[in-house]
Amino acid sequence: MSLKLVVVGGGSTYTPELIDGFARLRDTLPIGELVLVDPAAERLELVGGLARRIFAKQGHPGVITTSTDLDASVQGADAVLLQLRVGGQAARNQDETWPLECGCVGQETTGAGGLAKALRTVPVVLDIAERVRRANPDAWIVDFTNPVGIVTRALLTHGHKAVGLCNVAIGFQRKFAGLLGVAPERIQLDHVGLNHLTWERGVRLDGKDVLPELISAHGESIAEDLELPLSLVRQLGVVPSYYLRYFYEHDNVVAELKQQGSRASKVAAIEKELLAMYADPTLDEKPELLAQRGGAFYSEAAVQLVASLLGTQGGEPSEQVVNVLNAGTLPFLPDDAVIEVPALVDGSGARPLPVPTVEPLYAGLIAHVTGYEQLALDAALRGGRDRVFQALLAHPLVGQLDLAEQLTDRLIAHNHEHLAWA
Amino acid sequence: MSLKLVVVGGGSTYTPELIDGFARLRDTLPIGELVLVDPAAERLELVGGLARRIFAKQGHPGVITTSTDLDASVQGADAVLLQLRVGGQAARNQDETWPLECGCVGQETTGAGGLAKALRTVPVVLDIAERVRRANPDAWIVDFTNPVGIVTRALLTHGHKAVGLCNVAIGFQRKFAGLLGVAPERIQLDHVGLNHLTWERGVRLDGKDVLPELISAHGESIAEDLELPLSLVRQLGVVPSYYLRYFYEHDNVVAELKQQGSRASKVAAIEKELLAMYADPTLDEKPELLAQRGGAFYSEAAVQLVASLLGTQGGEPSEQVVNVLNAGTLPFLPDDAVIEVPALVDGSGARPLPVPTVEPLYAGLIAHVTGYEQLALDAALRGGRDRVFQALLAHPLVGQLDLAEQLTDRLIAHNHEHLAWA
Amino acid sequence: MSLKLVVVGGGSTYTPELIDGFARLRDTLPIGELVLVDPAAERLELVGGLARRIFAKQGHPGVITTSTDLDASVQGADAVLLQLRVGGQAARNQDETWPLECGCVGQETTGAGGLAKALRTVPVVLDIAERVRRANPDAWIVDFTNPVGIVTRALLTHGHKAVGLCNVAIGFQRKFAGLLGVAPERIQLDHVGLNHLTWERGVRLDGKDVLPELISAHGESIAEDLELPLSLVRQLGVVPSYYLRYFYEHDNVVAELKQQGSRASKVAAIEKELLAMYADPTLDEKPELLAQRGGAFYSEAAVQLVASLLGTQGGEPSEQVVNVLNAGTLPFLPDDAVIEVPALVDGSGARPLPVPTVEPLYAGLIAHVTGYEQLALDAALRGGRDRVFQALLAHPLVGQLDLAEQLTDRLIAHNHEHLAWA
Amino acid sequence: MSLKLVVVGGGSTYTPELIDGFARLRDTLPIGELVLVDPAAERLELVGGLARRIFAKQGHPGVITTSTDLDASVQGADAVLLQLRVGGQAARNQDETWPLECGCVGQETTGAGGLAKALRTVPVVLDIAERVRRANPDAWIVDFTNPVGIVTRALLTHGHKAVGLCNVAIGFQRKFAGLLGVAPERIQLDHVGLNHLTWERGVRLDGKDVLPELISAHGESIAEDLELPLSLVRQLGVVPSYYLRYFYEHDNVVAELKQQGSRASKVAAIEKELLAMYADPTLDEKPELLAQRGGAFYSEAAVQLVASLLGTQGGEPSEQVVNVLNAGTLPFLPDDAVIEVPALVDGSGARPLPVPTVEPLYAGLIAHVTGYEQLALDAALRGGRDRVFQALLAHPLVGQLDLAEQLTDRLIAHNHEHLAWA
Repeated sequence: MSLKLVVVGGGSTYTPELIDGFARLRDTLPIGELVLVDPAAERLELVGGLARRIFAKQGHPGVITTSTDLDASVQGADAVLLQLRVGGQAARNQDETWPLECGCVGQETTGAGGLAKALRTVPVVLDIAERVRRANPDAWIVDFTNPVGIVTRALLTHGHKAVGLCNVAIGFQRKFAGLLGVAPERIQLDHVGLNHLTWERGVRLDGKDVLPELISAHGESIAEDLELPLSLVRQLGVVPSYYLRYFYEHDNVVAELKQQGSRASKVAAIEKELLAMYADPTLDEKPELLAQRGGAFYSEAAVQLVASLLGTQGGEPSEQVVNVLNAGTLPFLPDDAVIEVPALVDGSGARPLPVPTVEPLYAGLIAHVTGYEQLALDAALRGGRDRVFQALLAHPLVGQLDLAEQLTDRLIAHNHEHLAWA
Repeated sequence: MSLKLVVVGGGSTYTPELIDGFARLRDTLPIGELVLVDPAAERLELVGGLARRIFAKQGHPGVITTSTDLDASVQGADAVLLQLRVGGQAARNQDETWPLECGCVGQETTGAGGLAKALRTVPVVLDIAERVRRANPDAWIVDFTNPVGIVTRALLTHGHKAVGLCNVAIGFQRKFAGLLGVAPERIQLDHVGLNHLTWERGVRLDGKDVLPELISAHGESIAEDLELPLSLVRQLGVVPSYYLRYFYEHDNVVAELKQQGSRASKVAAIEKELLAMYADPTLDEKPELLAQRGGAFYSEAAVQLVASLLGTQGGEPSEQVVNVLNAGTLPFLPDDAVIEVPALVDGSGARPLPVPTVEPLYAGLIAHVTGYEQLALDAALRGGRDRVFQALLAHPLVGQLDLAEQLTDRLIAHNHEHLAWA
Repeated sequence: MSLKLVVVGGGSTYTPELIDGFARLRDTLPIGELVLVDPAAERLELVGGLARRIFAKQGHPGVITTSTDLDASVQGADAVLLQLRVGGQAARNQDETWPLECGCVGQETTGAGGLAKALRTVPVVLDIAERVRRANPDAWIVDFTNPVGIVTRALLTHGHKAVGLCNVAIGFQRKFAGLLGVAPERIQLDHVGLNHLTWERGVRLDGKDVLPELISAHGESIAEDLELPLSLVRQLGVVPSYYLRYFYEHDNVVAELKQQGSRASKVAAIEKELLAMYADPTLDEKPELLAQRGGAFYSEAAVQLVASLLGTQGGEPSEQVVNVLNAGTLPFLPDDAVIEVPALVDGSGARPLPVPTVEPLYAGLIAHVTGYEQLALDAALRGGRDRVFQALLAHPLVGQLDLAEQLTDRLIAHNHEHLAWA
Repeated sequence: MSLKLVVVGGGSTYTPELIDGFARLRDTLPIGELVLVDPAAERLELVGGLARRIFAKQGHPGVITTSTDLDASVQGADAVLLQLRVGGQAARNQDETWPLECGCVGQETTGAGGLAKALRTVPVVLDIAERVRRANPDAWIVDFTNPVGIVTRALLTHGHKAVGLCNVAIGFQRKFAGLLGVAPERIQLDHVGLNHLTWERGVRLDGKDVLPELISAHGESIAEDLELPLSLVRQLGVVPSYYLRYFYEHDNVVAELKQQGSRASKVAAIEKELLAMYADPTLDEKPELLAQRGGAFYSEAAVQLVASLLGTQGGEPSEQVVNVLNAGTLPFLPDDAVIEVPALVDGSGARPLPVPTVEPLYAGLIAHVTGYEQLALDAALRGGRDRVFQALLAHPLVGQLDLAEQLTDRLIAHNHEHLAWA
């Protein structure tokens, strides 16, 4: 079996991380042809060159090509990975900045900034997905493009063969495995919620829940990573994702963010340095600096997911945390919401596994954000100032009229060129 | 048919309003005996005296007695109305004050103040209900004691024969009837949500929805009452309850409340004046001043509700907005949540009528607050700092760790004497 | 207020019963104009003549006209009552005959005969409804045409403003009121199931369940009416409808029916006699013989239903047993199934009231027949031998391949002229 | 890893089949100790001897012991397999005989005979499970004892760590793999329903549905095995289980069964012959004759299931068709029903995978039989003639009063010694 994969947004400085993973895990996912697609031809060449050198050094037989032509590239593809960023780090920089002026968190998935990103991204992703379907209706689409929850909901409610993926869960799996000193494969998570709004309610080692012991023995280390108080983790007996800080510590985070420069500006600086490195024709491995770029373990998660979807290991199903249609799994959410939970993944796609009753402390917030996501998607698909305003009013971190008005004005002003209706 | 009614908290200065309603609507609800029960014997006598004079003046044949002995009073009662206030206006004054110190709304139902009131009130109400059941398992309990949603949930999940009542819906019915120039009985509301968290999504005049015309013709008057912008009502096409201000205008309301004295202090002043009036043995009608005390139309709603429950008009069922168990009516909430919706009321109780799909802008907030209410009830029943903290963290108007910690400390400090576990 | 009503199938010999009810209950339902529509012009004149004489004798001011032109008749109508019979008593006679040849019950609603009637009737009723909607989108349609469950499902899933009505529930209400010696209005039923597949699980007198006492004191009389053993009623503590005989006593009923002539032939004989009477210009009241024609109390039920739908009494809602969309009321059935349960009826239509959990002994059969009804409707709408066969295979009284094949052949052979696709 | 397994009913003549599977698949399931428990000491010794010789011949290092003491045997067990038969083939013979007298199918799972078996078996199995739990709360119970659906429901609703297993699904997997010429592991089934009441609605080869092609190319062979008409399989496009014959061909099957002797008497004859063979100390493999005993591939299914539950292969989850709590998977059934569907099996148990909407032709029958199963379990747990009668009346193959009375009388008469309350 020899597969063809396409990475849309392949010119990202992040790509060598993915390539390194493809090289290391080539037995799991036997790639024959890999196409990096990106409109930014120059950067694409730098990244593509390094990608080829990494494959060569590790003796991977697959062919890597680069292209700016999406339609040609997806012909015959088995899977298409989406990791694009509409508007680039410049747009991200804005998403992280103007909400702070109103006292709201600026961030690329949560809150007003996340809405701006959703509005820019959903139409572009749906257009790409439509082209993929035309070229090859059997191809799988894996979305790693943020906000993953809303983008995946757009893809699935438009009938695409798609799964949404995030590296939060695999990060916890690796972290916990390290703390316990066991192989990561032996760990499964009782992960529940929406993308970037999740809690680990159980950590199964060979099927047995060890979360209480884990918190008891390693609570400090866990809480420190999350930048949340250990007392909270102890009291609740669950591990929230890092992104819960934007809710539980909202005002403190806003104060911090106002002090620091934006994450986007840091990433932009790192990216510039990385691209300089990539241009060096002797570099044939991912540089250390890339670790600061974010997205740890995404390549492992992506390989695992695509391998199970394409049945490269004899079609064995596997349990993976992904973004899928709710379809009754969380009975308090609409069937067409997208949730992030353990699913059984095989050639027929990702089917969510049953989830025990969600406690009201988490269910309330999940339901509230789901309402926002539905309105956000509606605004992304149909446009109009009123829809943007209503999505913001529906967000638990906004919720007030004045705030929603101010944020709506800024969002539209800063994203004018990306919004067809504005 | 001649009924026996008991009013617990009958010594309230508000009682003459209720008495006036009983007198006016005596054909609907033929009261033979009315017992006002209150531990505050002195005030009870003042109120009881006026109550008797109002009945006398209007020629009502019913006998009004007063008592400090609950168990004796509820013997043979057909219905028991709860309008008590644990801790009195002093406790309310605190509920409205300390949350403001943390930048949170201080109010007797919504937010941290409402939680304090729930914690004080639930155990007392359950004790009263238990005594009512012992004395007379057939008696109906009507709860008008705030927070009505949480208190009714406590009563219903403990198996009591209870219905929760609020005057918001009847207030809208009368308001809209006035604007339309029709008899209130011809108006039914498509009212949905939780107590003090509701939206009118339809206004049926003789069964036909006239809400769009109503907003179009009388939007200014409606918005003005709500202290919410007309543009919001126009854009959404629904009428939020006045209490949505605490969400949609939270920070502005906090600023206002900090400027003004507390509502409790105003009520206390009015009450003092009222009691002085009540002591006048020539007074035989409710004074004008009582209108400023709040609770308009409650007596009409209470008479209607009790009449239907006791079948005084031949058992005709009627549609009334009340607080009842959800039981699948809003599929996104637990079955044992208490919701405020139109119900069919007759001798078998209040059965919620089907509700069309709730839009995400409202459903998200309703679900979030329902999560809080479940944790609030848990804290009220089982006590403990952690439970109080979690209920606050679950509230959409709190939601942050620091804030929840500060509010928890203040809540406990200010309510020490009322909380058995503190 | 003065209403215009249309009765489609108004030439039925049954119509004088309905007219008598309209006359007696004219305060509840003030009819200004009543149009009897029927393609059978001659019979229509006989019936119409008697109808006018009944109104005249009782001093009813309304005008009764007759017409063969549906489109003209429904102009300006407030409500349209459907009581037609496609194929007449001749088709009914066949429905009651050929199933017996296969050992199956022959009956106009249950089993194979009922399927034949559904296939003939649904297209005709949908065509009529479409014309009503075109003429007057505000008009209510009340369906009394069997099989009421399937026909109403057809109407409601095609978006018509319709309610299905049957006289089983009102029959029980009158029966029980008689046994208890109280006014019927004081009795409400906890009636649950599908049309002609229902159980009374509670009988509320002024809101209080008296069913246990009723069975204990009057079980014999109740069981005798049902032709079911008293022991069954005693053991289950519920009252099945008469039509449950076709299930619980299926083989005995088949044997009986083989012995007797068909109900259709008896009705045909009665009808002939009735028409002869109607021709007598001195007859000005419904003849005694009409009582043997069936449909007792239908006129009362119809008046009550139409009065509530049209708000003739100030729009007071009332609880009535009707056929409505399930919409979550019975959680084990699809939302778009049609169920027969108590509903709140007012100008906005009929909204089902909450139903306590249905016991497995009834729920299993209800779910099975609902599956059949869905397939029966599909066969009626889309035709084809396979769909007829599958509907029969899905029926709990058929269920076997050979039987379903035989019945399918007979059904098609006997209904060729009524089935466009056959 | 070295496991301890216990087989309750280990003295069954069927056991060598299981032992043969354990020997062949020892890499998947590394058994260190296997205890065969049975009250029939003599037969147990014959079977145990052969079992040891099979292990020896195949070089399996595990130790096989026999015991009549359940409590001692289950100490330290990792898994307990239940394959017992209360009352033995004699009781089965009766179950297959007396229903025929009433014109009903006599069979050990479906219909009246299956109810008799459930009533005898449930109390015994619950007692065994309680002892297992006391000895070792971590041990898994795998139930292969019929009626598997009702017995598993009893175990799960009493909180036992149990999974129900049947060989119907694995039989189809092997059959279809053979027809397609592929390895069975590449085939997954979209199997849905209740134990012995299932349909294959999809057959996934490496994740892609090939059922239409399979029916088109191999329909004859499939239909022949089922003893159902090919035309039915073609028309429906699904493959019913063999047990659907008892519904779809009920009367024909009854006629056949009346002609033939009972299956129990044939099995008894085979068993006698087998035991004679087992006594031969030179026999060291399962005899050919055993294939006629039934239960093909059960050993493979059991090994696979236990291996996944005990995580013997690194805890990899796998998709297997088992009997599990519904828990919302089929929304038209109660949460506590037991269904037979694909589930993800790993150390945390079996979690049902999402199931696409079930067509009304199947859903109706499934719901009807689920109602019966609930009443059957109630009768098994609480006893009493009325409960037996109601379970029978609730069964779609009975459904009539006379029949239910007759069957109830016979069931009780024939099972007197096994029913504590009778």
